[in-house]
Amino acid sequence: MNLQQHFDIRLPGWIDGFVDNWLKAPGARLDTAGQRMSLAVALSAENVRQQTGGPFGAIVVEENGSRLVGVGVNLVTRLNMSAAHAEIVALSLSQRVVESWNLGSIGAMQLVTSCEPCAMCFGAVPWSGVASVVCGARKEDAEAAGFDEGDKPEDWTATLIRRGIEVKLDVMRAEAARVLHDYAACDGAIYHPGRT
Amino acid sequence: MNLQQHFDIRLPGWIDGFVDNWLKAPGARLDTAGQRMSLAVALSAENVRQQTGGPFGAIVVEENGSRLVGVGVNLVTRLNMSAAHAEIVALSLSQRVVESWNLGSIGAMQLVTSCEPCAMCFGAVPWSGVASVVCGARKEDAEAAGFDEGDKPEDWTATLIRRGIEVKLDVMRAEAARVLHDYAACDGAIYHPGRT
Repeated sequence: MNLQQHFDIRLPGWIDGFVDNWLKAPGARLDTAGQRMSLAVALSAENVRQQTGGPFGAIVVEENGSRLVGVGVNLVTRLNMSAAHAEIVALSLSQRVVESWNLGSIGAMQLVTSCEPCAMCFGAVPWSGVASVVCGARKEDAEAAGFDEGDKPEDWTATLIRRGIEVKLDVMRAEAARVLHDYAACDGAIYHPGRT
Repeated sequence: MNLQQHFDIRLPGWIDGFVDNWLKAPGARLDTAGQRMSLAVALSAENVRQQTGGPFGAIVVEENGSRLVGVGVNLVTRLNMSAAHAEIVALSLSQRVVESWNLGSIGAMQLVTSCEPCAMCFGAVPWSGVASVVCGARKEDAEAAGFDEGDKPEDWTATLIRRGIEVKLDVMRAEAARVLHDYAACDGAIYHPGRT
């Protein structure tokens, strides 16, 4: 039959060194939501600069610690994979580190994403086992830049909270939204069907 | 930094031969929704029998043809990846075949899934570029077997239709639901946080 049997999700080569440098900078910490968001937003901006994908970055960190478990950037166009949003990439790579599909299996984990999750990534959050989600830009910021966020329930934050997942919005929103705005201003690709 | 850089999504070894045999059986065709669902349900059942994952199967087929573009089964436990639902696997492998994140780029494609999509897979559908979705079992059938389908908008089919994506429900629902029921009856793993 010769069906396609596999695909490899791989981060761009610049990421490891970039994160390394970021963490070595004077005062760089991953203790607070703001510090964590600062790295997620830096990844979103660098992903555009390196031309490896859309203006979205995400990280997974120990909630009550500062261990960086995994990172992700949007790799939709690079991998030809519509599901390769920053959150899915970060969660999946982190699950590999933890060696479980449940990130909660080794303690409380936090997903920090430069933009509130789209409908797909929102749906992916409860399955991942994270204890909390921290978001930078809002859906409105992504839409203003031409992105489609999909159809989430109106009360999406409440549905996560009901599942015991904490949600924190608007952390460094202006900085995160600026990356989206700058991407749109430079005619960055808006990669969804019907808007190529 | 030694961040986790990549992961490989790979179908279990039995799938290629299984699909090959299925397609060679007398009368096997992929022309109608029912015929297509028959393969998706067969994959869901075989995935349980082979102990390679949960009771879910999906395929991507040319809407107006019979070319099988890609297949997927639930690989959450096998890959330690909570996003490795049958639909995400089938869509991602198909995008690799098509060499685009947009399956619509080479013609109308149909996603045929043995169970209606969970919240994550529902959100993934519009990003994938498929023209239509055919579902077997209902959310209620999955929930009766102990699975959590997540929080989709109440009118999830309408939101897809508004985006120009056709939705067909209840195709071979009884056969698809039976696989879920049998899985639950045999104490199959229900792999989501809080229900292990």
